[in-house]
Amino acid sequence: MNQAVQTKDKQRIALVIQYLGTHFYGWQRQPDRRTVQAEIETALSNVLHHSVVVHAAGRTDTGVHAAAQVAHFEASTPIPPQKWAAILNKWLPEDIVIRASAAVADDWHARFSATWRRYRYTLYTNARPNLFVAPVSWHYYHAPLDVDRIQEALDPLLGTHHLAAFHRANSSRSHSWVDVHEAHCDRDGPVVYIEVQANAFLYGMMRLLVGMLVEVGRGTLSTREFAEIWRNERRERVKYAAPPQGLCLLGVGYPDFPFPREIWDRTLPKYHFDPPTASPVGSARPETAIASNSPTD
Amino acid sequence: MNQAVQTKDKQRIALVIQYLGTHFYGWQRQPDRRTVQAEIETALSNVLHHSVVVHAAGRTDTGVHAAAQVAHFEASTPIPPQKWAAILNKWLPEDIVIRASAAVADDWHARFSATWRRYRYTLYTNARPNLFVAPVSWHYYHAPLDVDRIQEALDPLLGTHHLAAFHRANSSRSHSWVDVHEAHCDRDGPVVYIEVQANAFLYGMMRLLVGMLVEVGRGTLSTREFAEIWRNERRERVKYAAPPQGLCLLGVGYPDFPFPREIWDRTLPKYHFDPPTASPVGSARPETAIASNSPTD
Repeated sequence: MNQAVQTKDKQRIALVIQYLGTHFYGWQRQPDRRTVQAEIETALSNVLHHSVVVHAAGRTDTGVHAAAQVAHFEASTPIPPQKWAAILNKWLPEDIVIRASAAVADDWHARFSATWRRYRYTLYTNARPNLFVAPVSWHYYHAPLDVDRIQEALDPLLGTHHLAAFHRANSSRSHSWVDVHEAHCDRDGPVVYIEVQANAFLYGMMRLLVGMLVEVGRGTLSTREFAEIWRNERRERVKYAAPPQGLCLLGVGYPDFPFPREIWDRTLPKYHFDPPTASPVGSARPETAIASNSPTD
Repeated sequence: MNQAVQTKDKQRIALVIQYLGTHFYGWQRQPDRRTVQAEIETALSNVLHHSVVVHAAGRTDTGVHAAAQVAHFEASTPIPPQKWAAILNKWLPEDIVIRASAAVADDWHARFSATWRRYRYTLYTNARPNLFVAPVSWHYYHAPLDVDRIQEALDPLLGTHHLAAFHRANSSRSHSWVDVHEAHCDRDGPVVYIEVQANAFLYGMMRLLVGMLVEVGRGTLSTREFAEIWRNERRERVKYAAPPQGLCLLGVGYPDFPFPREIWDRTLPKYHFDPPTASPVGSARPETAIASNSPTD
């Protein structure tokens, strides 16, 4: 085969990918494991009849979800770039969906061209389990969480810091510098969100961070102790990683973003619970019950 | 066995049950089918070592969810009533959870004592599929939906009407009278909710109703035609049932509600999507991008 001719036709295609991490051993291909990368590479080889390597912006762990993972691959094919989403979706299992595809420049790289990543961690704090949020949240009801304290602990993380305290030991990354752009904690009823945007995330960082932040939120760790731990890189004090199902890669940013703007809508929902029914007791119609409690009654 | 002695100790226990309908052939026990009733009756017989019948407030169909189904059973046992929830949860599969249990009077009946039921139907209207809402919604992107028109069609349904037009043919119910207490349609971004509370629901009613309401919402049926169809009981005009995964039994009301008030919190979330990131393009930090668009630039 003439390598020069094959290379000439090669096109680089970027994908926006959503997946439920529940039944995957993470993004990265591993022997005898169900992984997102392997599923997408298999779908591609079914279409192209040869093996293809897919490069992702962030290699999510076992059980971690993605609302908008970004990846790219190369192919020599007449298929129009924007058609890849629909074509691959026909071959993919129901817990992966390609939301968009687009042509990118030969030097555009899903991982190395990315300038930011954004993750959200979701906690469900009601004592009773809830099946509708369970697959995408940590059921944390051991103690009440003070979101203002968590926000107070997050604020000093903004900017560039050496975050070795939140760097899992077996990482292949050569340094622990992270530029944190945003870090928010907020609550809606029983649901607490911790959302962080940074240039890059260290291996295990978000789950180690959330594991410590719940200690701050429940009051067993002061915001001062929390700051002291990460500023002095006391990795041995950071023991607990929050479970993976609460974590989701929300999106990835590029200086040269190849997708239509509306693809950037955040696709992981926030969960809002309506207030309780006015009166479950004593009446067929809530309005009647309210009226019977009025001062004129 | 002395029937009289056994009957003397019998206690009636009510349960609040949540389930994801996805992998069930509905509530009602059927031979060789996975049903919610069969799973709960099996769990009960594992605890009590004899067979038990469970009666539910509403027999949900294949694929329909429940946020707060109510059911009851009878047992002669020293187990304290409020302990049943935790005990049964140990035996139940992960797509059913008992949220509360309580003792009720001998003449209290989950179905016949109920004075209202409330259902919510969820539609996801963005053209691109979304895995995070897919299990609990109808992916409806064929045409835009006008929620004000749907609300206009719903308003005349309030009150007591003979709703034979929304009554599935093979129903065992002797009449089609329904007292509708509330009927709302509203939208949050790409998500549309249709919520109805009534004294009782006819077999297939909610899905046939939603099937017609999307015709109203997309403008292929006028609100006048819609009213004419149900007022004149033109069942033959009501052809399409909305798919089951969008439907959820939200709750059931009783004059004598045996559970703690906080159990009445609505446990099916509403799905809110944050607005898109300010600027995915051209900058590592959205704030910088906004600044560069300012008039002083």
